Amino acid sequence: MKDISDSPITRNGNSLILAYDHGTEHGPVDFQPMPKSADPKHVFEVAQHSAVTAIALQKGNAEYYRQWQKKYDEDVIEYGDTPLLVKLNGNSNLAKRDDYYSPKQCTVKYAVEELGAEAVGYTMYAGSLHEDEMWKEFREVQEQAREYDVPVVLWSYPRGKGIEENPDYRGQKDPEVVAYGARLGLELGADMVKCKYPGEKEDWQKLEENVGGLKTVMSGGSKRSDKTFLRDVSDTIDAGGNGLAVGRNIFQREDPNELLDSLEKVIFEQASPEDALK
Amino acid sequence: MKDISDSPITRNGNSLILAYDHGTEHGPVDFQPMPKSADPKHVFEVAQHSAVTAIALQKGNAEYYRQWQKKYDEDVIEYGDTPLLVKLNGNSNLAKRDDYYSPKQCTVKYAVEELGAEAVGYTMYAGSLHEDEMWKEFREVQEQAREYDVPVVLWSYPRGKGIEENPDYRGQKDPEVVAYGARLGLELGADMVKCKYPGEKEDWQKLEENVGGLKTVMSGGSKRSDKTFLRDVSDTIDAGGNGLAVGRNIFQREDPNELLDSLEKVIFEQASPEDALK
Amino acid sequence: MKDISDSPITRNGNSLILAYDHGTEHGPVDFQPMPKSADPKHVFEVAQHSAVTAIALQKGNAEYYRQWQKKYDEDVIEYGDTPLLVKLNGNSNLAKRDDYYSPKQCTVKYAVEELGAEAVGYTMYAGSLHEDEMWKEFREVQEQAREYDVPVVLWSYPRGKGIEENPDYRGQKDPEVVAYGARLGLELGADMVKCKYPGEKEDWQKLEENVGGLKTVMSGGSKRSDKTFLRDVSDTIDAGGNGLAVGRNIFQREDPNELLDSLEKVIFEQASPEDALK
Amino acid sequence: MKDISDSPITRNGNSLILAYDHGTEHGPVDFQPMPKSADPKHVFEVAQHSAVTAIALQKGNAEYYRQWQKKYDEDVIEYGDTPLLVKLNGNSNLAKRDDYYSPKQCTVKYAVEELGAEAVGYTMYAGSLHEDEMWKEFREVQEQAREYDVPVVLWSYPRGKGIEENPDYRGQKDPEVVAYGARLGLELGADMVKCKYPGEKEDWQKLEENVGGLKTVMSGGSKRSDKTFLRDVSDTIDAGGNGLAVGRNIFQREDPNELLDSLEKVIFEQASPEDALK
Amino acid sequence: MKDISDSPITRNGNSLILAYDHGTEHGPVDFQPMPKSADPKHVFEVAQHSAVTAIALQKGNAEYYRQWQKKYDEDVIEYGDTPLLVKLNGNSNLAKRDDYYSPKQCTVKYAVEELGAEAVGYTMYAGSLHEDEMWKEFREVQEQAREYDVPVVLWSYPRGKGIEENPDYRGQKDPEVVAYGARLGLELGADMVKCKYPGEKEDWQKLEENVGGLKTVMSGGSKRSDKTFLRDVSDTIDAGGNGLAVGRNIFQREDPNELLDSLEKVIFEQASPEDALK
Repeated sequence: MKDISDSPITRNGNSLILAYDHGTEHGPVDFQPMPKSADPKHVFEVAQHSAVTAIALQKGNAEYYRQWQKKYDEDVIEYGDTPLLVKLNGNSNLAKRDDYYSPKQCTVKYAVEELGAEAVGYTMYAGSLHEDEMWKEFREVQEQAREYDVPVVLWSYPRGKGIEENPDYRGQKDPEVVAYGARLGLELGADMVKCKYPGEKEDWQKLEENVGGLKTVMSGGSKRSDKTFLRDVSDTIDAGGNGLAVGRNIFQREDPNELLDSLEKVIFEQASPEDALK
Repeated sequence: MKDISDSPITRNGNSLILAYDHGTEHGPVDFQPMPKSADPKHVFEVAQHSAVTAIALQKGNAEYYRQWQKKYDEDVIEYGDTPLLVKLNGNSNLAKRDDYYSPKQCTVKYAVEELGAEAVGYTMYAGSLHEDEMWKEFREVQEQAREYDVPVVLWSYPRGKGIEENPDYRGQKDPEVVAYGARLGLELGADMVKCKYPGEKEDWQKLEENVGGLKTVMSGGSKRSDKTFLRDVSDTIDAGGNGLAVGRNIFQREDPNELLDSLEKVIFEQASPEDALK
Repeated sequence: MKDISDSPITRNGNSLILAYDHGTEHGPVDFQPMPKSADPKHVFEVAQHSAVTAIALQKGNAEYYRQWQKKYDEDVIEYGDTPLLVKLNGNSNLAKRDDYYSPKQCTVKYAVEELGAEAVGYTMYAGSLHEDEMWKEFREVQEQAREYDVPVVLWSYPRGKGIEENPDYRGQKDPEVVAYGARLGLELGADMVKCKYPGEKEDWQKLEENVGGLKTVMSGGSKRSDKTFLRDVSDTIDAGGNGLAVGRNIFQREDPNELLDSLEKVIFEQASPEDALK
Repeated sequence: MKDISDSPITRNGNSLILAYDHGTEHGPVDFQPMPKSADPKHVFEVAQHSAVTAIALQKGNAEYYRQWQKKYDEDVIEYGDTPLLVKLNGNSNLAKRDDYYSPKQCTVKYAVEELGAEAVGYTMYAGSLHEDEMWKEFREVQEQAREYDVPVVLWSYPRGKGIEENPDYRGQKDPEVVAYGARLGLELGADMVKCKYPGEKEDWQKLEENVGGLKTVMSGGSKRSDKTFLRDVSDTIDAGGNGLAVGRNIFQREDPNELLDSLEKVIFEQASPEDALK
Repeated sequence: MKDISDSPITRNGNSLILAYDHGTEHGPVDFQPMPKSADPKHVFEVAQHSAVTAIALQKGNAEYYRQWQKKYDEDVIEYGDTPLLVKLNGNSNLAKRDDYYSPKQCTVKYAVEELGAEAVGYTMYAGSLHEDEMWKEFREVQEQAREYDVPVVLWSYPRGKGIEENPDYRGQKDPEVVAYGARLGLELGADMVKCKYPGEKEDWQKLEENVGGLKTVMSGGSKRSDKTFLRDVSDTIDAGGNGLAVGRNIFQREDPNELLDSLEKVIFEQASPEDALK
């Protein structure tokens, strides 16, 4: 079992993951604000920014990414070498479900042996009626990831009837709920856990106290001003977090490079948001 | 992983798939308008037209096709060499279901090792209560197809309660829904996706923008005049599509050769529908 | 994949299958009209009539049959060599079910390797709420039967809520339904399909037009006069069918030999029912 | 496949099985009438009576029995060599179920390879909503038992909604129901079937006519006078049965040896109950 | 099969298990009374007290424990060598369930081969609607533990609808229910069973009469005065029990060493609670 700090998906112990699984999760609607983002090649290029330590893709786009990398190389433009994190499960929002669930659509074996994944990811909806089923699937994923010695990132998003119908919880962003989700990352054997930003820096500090040093990244979440966004990222880092996983906030921009420059400073160079924006 | 453009089921990058799974899906009723179409041998012969790049069959007819090919050859009439696409799942409409589902009735292993399939196909009903189950089955199918290096075609037909009960969607032919279905072909790792024609050329263009260059074929759909039908096919090609999968529109005709001649011109030679009909 | 015409369960391309699975399906009540029929050894002896090309048994009786054959041989009476068809699934009518289903109680491996089965059989209730589950089981059965190169007979009995609640169908004996069931035998890769006799010769002819030359046998059904019964069998043969699977109509008789003589003439020598009864 | 008559669990073709699975099925309450029966070692000793041809235990007690045997031997008292029948499934009555079911808690492999079981047993509740699931489990058990060449005893207890809600049946002890259960032992490939005593000798005779020579043992049932009990056992033997499986009627006695002496005479020496009691 | 008395998790036949799975079962809320307990390293250190014969951890913390042990050693403070018991299943209380269930999140193979577990543990909720499913999972766990020759501890906690809705039982702490749960430990093949303390010494004596010498430990339960707590532990030992599994009662203290000293005397040196407190 390799230390995740030795994995190419971290740099100086931190990570910036560019997630591009929106075609699965939400469909074409997510690309409408920036139509060129519908083309995976465009996002592959964005992911080559030096700030990005991993691109997170579903199986089909992961296959495409590997082909694109070969082609990119042949064209002698520049080698696109951002590490690949294969997201192993996902779901569409076409379906109607009794509660949240995300079926596995790629095995660890395929991700590593055929796609050469440098990391794998799995979404868990603790709190859902399907929580137990997802624990069992994650058990298999985690143990196979250990076999192949690739780090496993848990998208830990507690939600569903167990949260909604429990008066003790104030929904998905309740700091208690977010921290419990993060702790599950530790308990279940993940190498990194991705959590919703609960809203305040002290909430993330609380969360950090409960994960025994496990790597944590905040989820990009809804669109905000660059300043607010960088502030949240900076607060996460300050509170002991290890970075960011982000999608729409990047690929829905005409030119995401500027924001990526700033994020790089905040995440890897401990710059303040103000300095990073300069 | 072979490029599908090198597969015998495409020619110049495009495909015309003759689908003959109606005995499974609808039963004898589909053959009544042209009784000789109930006899697989008749359809096998139709499939030898040079326009056809693959015949799509369920397991039992696939076994029969291979026997027929041997016999055909022995009789020294002419070798029937149209490639075989084995459709791996299917369902009858005898059953009552809570929502759309199509059980797997042939493994990739059997299709390739025993039947020598040049490609495999799988129907997915995203939007159904059984969507998640079908994703898991498709995962297995896709990864096994990669092992055997045969292309996998996804019949991507979003339908079911998730579509019907969602006021944001206007049913199965809603261009949004069709495009989402096509995108899933890319995300889940298919080599070609078969979609319902949503009605207008610009809808197919929209769809193409969301599939990252994945091969697409339109589904033959209900019966129309030859001119309208060829126009739709031509529009699909113009919009960036790669051809057609068709069944009843061909085998319910007394003599399908004329239409196949026209389709060949439209699909492989970029003829206009008017020129193709001449 | 061997041609079923080369299998010992057919003679001149036709078959007479003596089915003795009633102890499973209905229990002791089926033996009451002829108590000696409760003793498997009695029925094993009946099955040695030269008309019978296969005896269809559930696993336990199949084990018993093999022991009996050895003993029979040792006693130097005469070697009982009627081929064994192991029925792989079955159900009791003690259970209460939401819809028709028949669980597998013998693997193909056990049937062939341990019991030396010359053929295997599987009952499918298309139209039931459990149709999809049965398709999946049959897929496995069919592919394993191919591995062992033994023919697989599909008891194709469409029934259940999908038939009963569909106003387009007039029940299990609706010729449309019976023909669809037969077609599924072809589509799913059976070597022979066993169907309910729908009532009229032209119905069977219709059925034959839809099975692409697949072997078909009629199911013995309820008790009738010998003349009517032989007429139905003869009509089946005339219409292109390949014989009969029969149980109670034989073993509930004091002396079934006379009727077996007549059936032999009708099925294997194309005698008219009148000539056969002489 | 060995003849069960050559198995150590029969003597002269008959059996007396001492069942001690009550700690699983009913819990400590069954030991209260005779507290020392809560101690497995006490019952192990009882089982060494020469009348007992097998002791039936759940997995944990089977492990304990093997340890006890070794110890017993070392203590040079006398070698406890009564054969071990491992009961493979069982259930507690702590649970609430929609209908009868008994989960498997020991594999055949473990029973034979690790525990050296001389036979295995499985309880089937035909008539339950879970009948089909149990048939599938039994299929696996039976085929594995054949692989290891150990006899398999079917506890065939038809019960559940299919019996209770069917006006044709008069409950679990309806001779029709009991006989159907016994017949299933034959059909499904058991080597011995254990049935409830339906109440009258002629009922057991009826049952015997339906099992084709399969070994049968009556279930001990509720407590009766010794005379009545021996009469029932004797009637079972007279009617063609092969013995008895008994639990509480033995281990709830202060000194079960006298009754065991009598049972030995009735079961293995064809003594009348009157002579056996002397 | 090794005798558990030869296992490092017992000393002189008794055990004190420090359980630290609360981050899984209850989340961060359990650490709030003593915030440093949220840090696994703190609890790992507590577990090095000589009284502790095993630390029980979920998979992720077990991985962390092994890393910590290595580091601890390198730092030459002192080798932390308390044996590791990997708890194989667990559940969060974020989820909403129809009845109690605890999904498996670690295989025996992973626990032993990768984590070097000296023992494994499994929670069973007999009485739940999911009891049967848990029996099947435990069967697999138990047999795999035998393969690896590590002892298996059953957390036997009868609860759920079968208990609540049965008027014969007075809830989870009904001595009848607790004793039945303990007996299941014997029947199902555990090496040690962990039970709720039913309240009185004579209840535990009753329990001991039903387990055939199986090792038993009482569950720490809710917080009490040290004197009452030690009295309960002492009574358990006197009644034939083998120790204690405890979590919050230890790690929620500022300094747990004093209580651990006392427990050591009571459990391993048969001290009275009064003497132990001195």
